Amino acid sequence: MPANVTRQILADHLVEGELTPGSPIGIRIDQTLTQDATGTLVMLELEAMGLDRVRTEVSAQYVDHNLVQEDHKNPDDHRFLRSACERFGVWFSRPGNGISHPVHQERFGRPGATMAGSDSHTPAAGAVGMLAIGSGGLDVAMAMAGEPLRIRCPQVWGVELVGELHDWVSAKDVILELLRRHDVDGGVGRIIEYHGPGVANLSAMDRHVICNMGAELGATTSVFPADEEVRRFLTRQGRADDFRELVAEDGATYDVTERIDLSSVEPLIALPTSPGNVVPVREVAGQPIAQAYIGSSANPGYRDFAVVAAVLEATGATVSDDVSLDVNPTSRQILGELIRDGYLLPLVRAGARLHQAGCNGCIGMGQAPPTDAISLRTTPRNFPGRSGTVDDRVHLCSPETAVASAITGVITDPRDLGTEHGIDFPRIVETDDALIDTELLIAPLPEEEAAKVEIIKGPNIASLPDFEPLPDELELEVLLETGDDVSTDEILRAGAAVLPYRSNIPEIARFAFDVIDPTYHDRAVAIQEAGGAGHVVVGGRNYGQGSSREHAALAPRHVGLRATLVVSYARIHWQNLANFGVLPLRFADERDRDALAQGDRLRLTGLHAALDSGSGEVTVENLTQGTTITAVHDLSPRQVERIRSGGVIRYMKERLSGRQRQPRERGLEE
Amino acid sequence: MPANVTRQILADHLVEGELTPGSPIGIRIDQTLTQDATGTLVMLELEAMGLDRVRTEVSAQYVDHNLVQEDHKNPDDHRFLRSACERFGVWFSRPGNGISHPVHQERFGRPGATMAGSDSHTPAAGAVGMLAIGSGGLDVAMAMAGEPLRIRCPQVWGVELVGELHDWVSAKDVILELLRRHDVDGGVGRIIEYHGPGVANLSAMDRHVICNMGAELGATTSVFPADEEVRRFLTRQGRADDFRELVAEDGATYDVTERIDLSSVEPLIALPTSPGNVVPVREVAGQPIAQAYIGSSANPGYRDFAVVAAVLEATGATVSDDVSLDVNPTSRQILGELIRDGYLLPLVRAGARLHQAGCNGCIGMGQAPPTDAISLRTTPRNFPGRSGTVDDRVHLCSPETAVASAITGVITDPRDLGTEHGIDFPRIVETDDALIDTELLIAPLPEEEAAKVEIIKGPNIASLPDFEPLPDELELEVLLETGDDVSTDEILRAGAAVLPYRSNIPEIARFAFDVIDPTYHDRAVAIQEAGGAGHVVVGGRNYGQGSSREHAALAPRHVGLRATLVVSYARIHWQNLANFGVLPLRFADERDRDALAQGDRLRLTGLHAALDSGSGEVTVENLTQGTTITAVHDLSPRQVERIRSGGVIRYMKERLSGRQRQPRERGLEE
Repeated sequence: MPANVTRQILADHLVEGELTPGSPIGIRIDQTLTQDATGTLVMLELEAMGLDRVRTEVSAQYVDHNLVQEDHKNPDDHRFLRSACERFGVWFSRPGNGISHPVHQERFGRPGATMAGSDSHTPAAGAVGMLAIGSGGLDVAMAMAGEPLRIRCPQVWGVELVGELHDWVSAKDVILELLRRHDVDGGVGRIIEYHGPGVANLSAMDRHVICNMGAELGATTSVFPADEEVRRFLTRQGRADDFRELVAEDGATYDVTERIDLSSVEPLIALPTSPGNVVPVREVAGQPIAQAYIGSSANPGYRDFAVVAAVLEATGATVSDDVSLDVNPTSRQILGELIRDGYLLPLVRAGARLHQAGCNGCIGMGQAPPTDAISLRTTPRNFPGRSGTVDDRVHLCSPETAVASAITGVITDPRDLGTEHGIDFPRIVETDDALIDTELLIAPLPEEEAAKVEIIKGPNIASLPDFEPLPDELELEVLLETGDDVSTDEILRAGAAVLPYRSNIPEIARFAFDVIDPTYHDRAVAIQEAGGAGHVVVGGRNYGQGSSREHAALAPRHVGLRATLVVSYARIHWQNLANFGVLPLRFADERDRDALAQGDRLRLTGLHAALDSGSGEVTVENLTQGTTITAVHDLSPRQVERIRSGGVIRYMKERLSGRQRQPRERGLEE
Repeated sequence: MPANVTRQILADHLVEGELTPGSPIGIRIDQTLTQDATGTLVMLELEAMGLDRVRTEVSAQYVDHNLVQEDHKNPDDHRFLRSACERFGVWFSRPGNGISHPVHQERFGRPGATMAGSDSHTPAAGAVGMLAIGSGGLDVAMAMAGEPLRIRCPQVWGVELVGELHDWVSAKDVILELLRRHDVDGGVGRIIEYHGPGVANLSAMDRHVICNMGAELGATTSVFPADEEVRRFLTRQGRADDFRELVAEDGATYDVTERIDLSSVEPLIALPTSPGNVVPVREVAGQPIAQAYIGSSANPGYRDFAVVAAVLEATGATVSDDVSLDVNPTSRQILGELIRDGYLLPLVRAGARLHQAGCNGCIGMGQAPPTDAISLRTTPRNFPGRSGTVDDRVHLCSPETAVASAITGVITDPRDLGTEHGIDFPRIVETDDALIDTELLIAPLPEEEAAKVEIIKGPNIASLPDFEPLPDELELEVLLETGDDVSTDEILRAGAAVLPYRSNIPEIARFAFDVIDPTYHDRAVAIQEAGGAGHVVVGGRNYGQGSSREHAALAPRHVGLRATLVVSYARIHWQNLANFGVLPLRFADERDRDALAQGDRLRLTGLHAALDSGSGEVTVENLTQGTTITAVHDLSPRQVERIRSGGVIRYMKERLSGRQRQPRERGLEE
């Protein structure tokens, strides 16, 4: 059967399972991408595993999120990451070098490769024919250690592009059109593969825009073919040798099909507070704005800045007195090209505020808009409060719409600006001579030197605690009873008071469950100090919903959480608990929930046999009340193996040191 | 008697007192400068006074400090300031336009003018022959309302400059030389006036560097003559008409004299943690650094950036892998000129991190260095922790020393770099065609339009509370007893939890005295809610030392502080208390301090007569203990008048509305 691009790459990398949509597969990972907000934990995990050197073709660590250095914590993290990269053989992109996704595409993107990245916009690399998947930090750490990435095999959603974009319409409008049609869950369980004659009309960075925001559709990833444009792109970056053509085989089919006529796309805008709230710009034109924001990984290309400069120059217009035009350059390389080609000066002269290269306001690190004012952004997301301002009114749009509106002070269809000023749409042509800039990109050390590197930890960075293997019997106290729908924000909240301790599990553990019960931490530690085995948390339905943050499992585990006993779990938190060695049990009979009280002492015996048995049943004696109930685990044999080891990290540590027998491969967790 | 420049300007503006060093004088103020960190309170004060329009020749409000917008508070402040400027007839320099001092010099600097500014580096404008004095926010508000600025007449310290600077030595080294000789209190009570043949060898922006850091000597201000170089500077800015020659009259003398042979100055560096810890660079050469920081109001000139770019280009060197080269452009105008003249690209290409135009890391708003690492900065101050990193190791130096060290990775005398690379010192010549940029500088509205403007306040901005006039009798509870040397940091602490409420007195009042007694605020409010007149705080020696922040008086006053009774006061806090209507009393007999206890009820009767009497004595009955003690006030008749009104703001309000009799001018506060 002729294969589409997705299937060709998957088949090339398949190490476990079968390529049937919905079925569990394991794929070999060629490259990894980490950024600083998630990367510090990944590096601590590698350290705890005892990894000597990454086993990927390329692993690259970027510093693009936490660039605002208001105290020692961020610069200490930067230094820690640098030293960890040296130790483990990872490329290090220094703070200020630029946003991970476009820099990675320029320096490392390779048609046909797979990538796991601890950032949800990792799929952007699909622009050059890669299969790049956003994952949890531990999954990426595992991939760096040579483990396959395990996912459910997605459907392939073929989106055929035909025609050509009109003037004043650009790639951002294409992905907004797909979001308009399918909203933010339209891509769940799917890989979006673009094909058709319209593809040739989009540059590699235009494709980056489209793949990047495919994440907003909930897609596993997005991918374009590697065609002549990709050859041009890589050649321009001095990397012609990394090109290989990769297109769908003749007659290839897709699980789901769709068609976009590019010539029918008009300027679009996503209204607050979802990237799926898309309407034509003209429907909301005329509303006053306070901010227009250019940049981010969702519009990172040279042309995305140059077109703004060219419009300002052609119209002779300047920024409205009521608008802050914030320009966030993608990378030093693109900034350099904009300077060289004369595009930066018109931006500055027209009144733009030029910020440092990085993610910045896209993830709330500066550039927050004022209260109750519209901010137009070329960024990928407008979730409520993401800008930093509570009740913000962020709209997502193209650079063309942003600059037109920055000039007029109100939301403006860029076609109207063109008409009013009688100017032609400035089509930006990238020169052939890239200003390749690797000055802040540090290559991995040779293996011998790397082995000698000492990882540098500032006072706020602590090695991951080590967790003991699961004993055959546990006697645990019910330390906390919780209700239904407890979110990871209640288990371990985010926010300015907590996040600075992301690299410090002992410190961040102080905040565990404090939303529900501020005494939790101290009571948990008291049990540990008294020599107890630990504690259980009891809960209801949908336990651990919300953010995927791993700290919500790691932090309670650190203060002695050995098992959770709930009615049902949210999937990711369930997996995180298992990853960090917490036994995630559920009630066999939901009514038993009422038979437990805070303070009860539970005894779990014969755990090893129980976990290995086919039934998945674990007997729980309530010593306090003199009763016995049945709990169930839903763990795969691989997960059981890891929990018995004390968690994935300890399991990997034993495996990497050669002490671990290979697990019986009886199933696959998600 | 032939007059020096200082005396000529003072004589031109004298409205009260005599020009004898140490004697109180009042001078007419032509211009004011406010920045956003202090300006929000100034604008609230103007609003509370009921000012209709500023009475100065130029008042300009800059937004350069709080540019990192992590939530709504900073952008809301920006919008508030903008609307207040429109209302009161003030120039508004939008966020991103640049650092106040150099922008002010370029756009408004005028030989012979006086200026009051609510920023300690206001003296920088002395570069063009102005007398520019840093003051408290309320003093600046008063000046905006047309009041004279009242100071003690300073001595004039004539510094004769001869000779010419050697290659690789620049203006920063000159002011570091003066700091090396006289340390941080060498200029107290003095105005530094530069004269002599060496002056002609320093550009107007070089002089800015020197005047700016004159603040570090503790000087009242610094001033250069307005000579041909100032004419060139103003002509280049399109302001030739604002030039007038202003030089010392032949034979003019100075109260104190000094001489610097510029040809004897070598590259200098101020070690942690004081700008006065100055040694030659060669003495500390070779120490590894983690950061080199270019920019700030202490090295704001075009040449200060261009020379760094030129050195990088001439040597072909790039930034050391271990150094973060942070470039903080002064202003959009200078950034534009650097782009146009080809100096920005080499900076970026060599590995610099380019930040937005503004104060940034100079006041701890980003760019903090990592723990236990040397940061080399061209900024004016290296007080401990000012960078944001506790126990930081900030060194102050010239751009030449900073770039040489950024290349080598260790502290480096720039002369050695020149020798090693065999390059000539790049002498930067500013072109004649400035790229004048007023795009983000908004002119005052015409009076009629201004009157209609409504001031926009975000949810975190509250109008100043109104304080009632002082009654003739007060019955007050001793709410708090404090020890000796209580600082304003204990009265109202700074820090990230508190500072965001700088424009919100009711909110910031919650933090009053919480370092000493967390129950203070609630107990104070309880008295107010029970209908009581308020409370007294009792203290020891040197009460209110430290930072000059006005909030330390305003916040306790808001929750009912009506009088303080202490052994002695730090000068500025004493004045702030009086300004905001708190009666600052001291014990006539220090031993009475022990006769008071927390909770005692005190009655002060016949206050009006007591304050007006020559003796300054106030009788305090202790109703709880049945005793009577004598307290003393040291207020001038003007201060008495204002306290009786309820504070300066209420006094000004009555005066501006024509309801206030002119005070009897019997004395002068400092």
